[in-house]
Amino acid sequence: MKTVGPVSSQKLPLFKLLPLVCFSFIFLNTISVNAQEAFDFDSGNAAIEVVIPNVAPVVFTEVSPSGGDATLVLRVTTLVTNSWYDATAPYHPTAVGVYSRLGRQPAAESSNRNINIALIYASYRVLNSLLPKQRPQWRSMLQSVGLNPDDNSEDLNTAVGLGNVAGNAVVEGRINDGMNQLGNEDRAHNPTPYADYTNYKPINTAYRLLFPSRWQPDIQRQGMGIYKVQQFVTPQYALVEPYSYQAPEDFQVPYPINSFVFNRRAYRQQADEVLIASANLTEVQKLKSELFDNKILSLGFSAVFAAQSQGLSLLEFIQLDFLTNMAAFDAGIFVWQEKRRYDAVRPFSAIRYLYGDQLVTAWGGPGQGTIQLPANEWKSYLEEADHPEYPSASTCFCNAHAQSARLYLGTDALFYPVNYPAGSSRIEPGFTPSTDTSFTFDSWTEFVDDCGQSRVWSGVHFQAAVDESNKICPVFGDMAFEYMTSLIDGSASARPPSQGR
Amino acid sequence: MKTVGPVSSQKLPLFKLLPLVCFSFIFLNTISVNAQEAFDFDSGNAAIEVVIPNVAPVVFTEVSPSGGDATLVLRVTTLVTNSWYDATAPYHPTAVGVYSRLGRQPAAESSNRNINIALIYASYRVLNSLLPKQRPQWRSMLQSVGLNPDDNSEDLNTAVGLGNVAGNAVVEGRINDGMNQLGNEDRAHNPTPYADYTNYKPINTAYRLLFPSRWQPDIQRQGMGIYKVQQFVTPQYALVEPYSYQAPEDFQVPYPINSFVFNRRAYRQQADEVLIASANLTEVQKLKSELFDNKILSLGFSAVFAAQSQGLSLLEFIQLDFLTNMAAFDAGIFVWQEKRRYDAVRPFSAIRYLYGDQLVTAWGGPGQGTIQLPANEWKSYLEEADHPEYPSASTCFCNAHAQSARLYLGTDALFYPVNYPAGSSRIEPGFTPSTDTSFTFDSWTEFVDDCGQSRVWSGVHFQAAVDESNKICPVFGDMAFEYMTSLIDGSASARPPSQGR
Repeated sequence: MKTVGPVSSQKLPLFKLLPLVCFSFIFLNTISVNAQEAFDFDSGNAAIEVVIPNVAPVVFTEVSPSGGDATLVLRVTTLVTNSWYDATAPYHPTAVGVYSRLGRQPAAESSNRNINIALIYASYRVLNSLLPKQRPQWRSMLQSVGLNPDDNSEDLNTAVGLGNVAGNAVVEGRINDGMNQLGNEDRAHNPTPYADYTNYKPINTAYRLLFPSRWQPDIQRQGMGIYKVQQFVTPQYALVEPYSYQAPEDFQVPYPINSFVFNRRAYRQQADEVLIASANLTEVQKLKSELFDNKILSLGFSAVFAAQSQGLSLLEFIQLDFLTNMAAFDAGIFVWQEKRRYDAVRPFSAIRYLYGDQLVTAWGGPGQGTIQLPANEWKSYLEEADHPEYPSASTCFCNAHAQSARLYLGTDALFYPVNYPAGSSRIEPGFTPSTDTSFTFDSWTEFVDDCGQSRVWSGVHFQAAVDESNKICPVFGDMAFEYMTSLIDGSASARPPSQGR
Repeated sequence: MKTVGPVSSQKLPLFKLLPLVCFSFIFLNTISVNAQEAFDFDSGNAAIEVVIPNVAPVVFTEVSPSGGDATLVLRVTTLVTNSWYDATAPYHPTAVGVYSRLGRQPAAESSNRNINIALIYASYRVLNSLLPKQRPQWRSMLQSVGLNPDDNSEDLNTAVGLGNVAGNAVVEGRINDGMNQLGNEDRAHNPTPYADYTNYKPINTAYRLLFPSRWQPDIQRQGMGIYKVQQFVTPQYALVEPYSYQAPEDFQVPYPINSFVFNRRAYRQQADEVLIASANLTEVQKLKSELFDNKILSLGFSAVFAAQSQGLSLLEFIQLDFLTNMAAFDAGIFVWQEKRRYDAVRPFSAIRYLYGDQLVTAWGGPGQGTIQLPANEWKSYLEEADHPEYPSASTCFCNAHAQSARLYLGTDALFYPVNYPAGSSRIEPGFTPSTDTSFTFDSWTEFVDDCGQSRVWSGVHFQAAVDESNKICPVFGDMAFEYMTSLIDGSASARPPSQGR
């Protein structure tokens, strides 16, 4: 696919930046963002060196403390990368934006400097809309690299103007896309941003599993000893307009027959599979479970790594990053439609329901290894995300992401290395892994397989939820790539602001 | 009461420390704790200069992000101040500890240096038990002032030994006090610290008010757009052993007759009172509501201020701080018994139930002033805390705290000044107050009156919940003072570790 990439533009020295980026991502909660004193507009990548280090900590502190609520995270990353792409399309020989058509810049203008300036201003406009409370931080992000946040130029002959116009167009294009960003979908006062307006109500309570086929909100600990009850996060995501296809209704996973409680044998068998996986959990499975639970380390990072190892140009990096985000974002719309349709039970509920106070053999909690314990006291290795079980969202995201990357890069080869120092586990700090541990995903196929299976290992999904996502979800990568191709070759038609569906 | 204070010990220059303390408290979430490079053991107050600046940020990030869940916060502050008191009792002519009897030190040993060392080591033992994840921070708290965290001496002739033994005794005394600190009250695996083990279940769901007299969990926003459902925080607090009295059952508030929905006229009238207060909310009422919602700024700070303005010695400061914390802690046990007994509806539910989509006149949200809006879209100025409405916990805490302080200090006079720069409101940043605003609580009586009434102004309580707490709760200050007196004069009997009730 690199044939549709830009002709000019310097190759990125991404590899030398990886340690910085890793550090920024992994230690999000402990570090503060330092001014990018020495950002080099001519040879640097402002997406990686300026925007991401500012946005990532805010994503974890303001958007999703657990990192587990992927819908809001994905919308932020997709809109930001969309703005990078739209703002810089004029520097490509043929590309057009999703939400703006800003003409074509002379080839001589297609410098990393201009591309970097345009993407920073585009990010600034989108971030001010998505995360307005952090406005001072977005201002200082610009100031830290010598840019003026009060430069509202819309001159399309300048990088600043392209960034501002493209960023504002992405905001206008997505602000009413059905996600309820403004919190005004069902009310005129006291807005409730991203709140459900579709009247979803769980049929079970956290306190009683009256319908054992259906989802039950869990009670989850926050900090020292506050407990809150889960709520299905953004059920309205199913109503959001996809980028790359028309109708989520055209896609479907089969009824989760094994989760139907009167199908007793199958219901028990799939629960037993989860317990067996829990009892046989290895160190590497624990680490992979944690890796794929963190969408930024797994999805975000693998794309950065692939761009680096394939020597993509800055414009190509932007295309790939927007493409993979869009693929996962569009896949999520379908997944939310199905999660809502089936409203299926999670393993923790089924296991308690089946076995109550009976002893089961399973992982016994952080540092406890495999033990016998009452089913009521069993916990999954990972905490369940805030939504019904079926199908697996993570598996679908990984499939869409990997498939779009495969098509863009023209290869299944990946060789993505991950290192966990001894004791660096989030769930079992100090215990896991027992020695420094490394593994490499040689291909996107391997990446996807482990991504999906890790949801069973970690006890948050039944096998069928993974299998069905594996079957259907590559199509979302296909469609995203097809749409991206039409954007890059300039054949995509202009797109009006979304009004939801 | 200053007659039972210590004879020696330098007077504290607390006032000059207040700006530092204020800064630490107010900007808890934005600052990190710096090493206390220049702590002076001979003239300083390690409680204020060393322990509190380390503990307070953790309380807000780990214990109660909102600051609204007072039960866990109060248990931390009460156990820490208890350990200060017990560790330093040997330096007083007559005082004995709650959970340890460590003999009497010669008067010549009763120096600020020794008292400071003892209280730091005692804090260290208690904090390692209460907040074990932060163990590295507690270690560095000691190291920052040149103390050795590995000094486990139990030599009762040294300040270090007194601190260690007293701190460990408070841990042992309270670890099984009914609060479920270890999370093992109803399970042997995967401990759930501070989780309910009494099987409390709300009778209403967040989605439907089936019983309009009874408490309904609210749906509350976290960060950008995650919503969680409230759960009654630590219903088991009612089963915790009080310090200063035997049986919470001996105390009772009357049935909240106005919250009984079939008592229609009263039910509507008390809801209307809340709406009228909301419609008439003044700037000063908004600020006082925010002040009293923050237990550290209101309860904690008023005690520090009173100690300073009355010129208390270090030992006296410790006595007052433990006393006021204990009074509120013991009052809370009673309040939780009553909250659980009556499980009463909050104003937001009653107002929606009564008026639905009908327009009401009220505060219209941050920066909106008083407007007409559908009752379903009304919000209280403060978010409701995680528990049933009746009686008012804040009002009871303030009464117990103020009454115990009054008795200890021998005066109702207070003159506690509070300053809010323009725009410094937490709820209406940039809007409220419109100009720099100051007010002074001339007396504890004034402090308590505003504390209680602010819960109606801010829409989280009906008047009856405030009135009944005002009536009964001074008795918890009386009893705490009586117990404290018996500790200070040495007549209190030894106390075995608590086993809950």
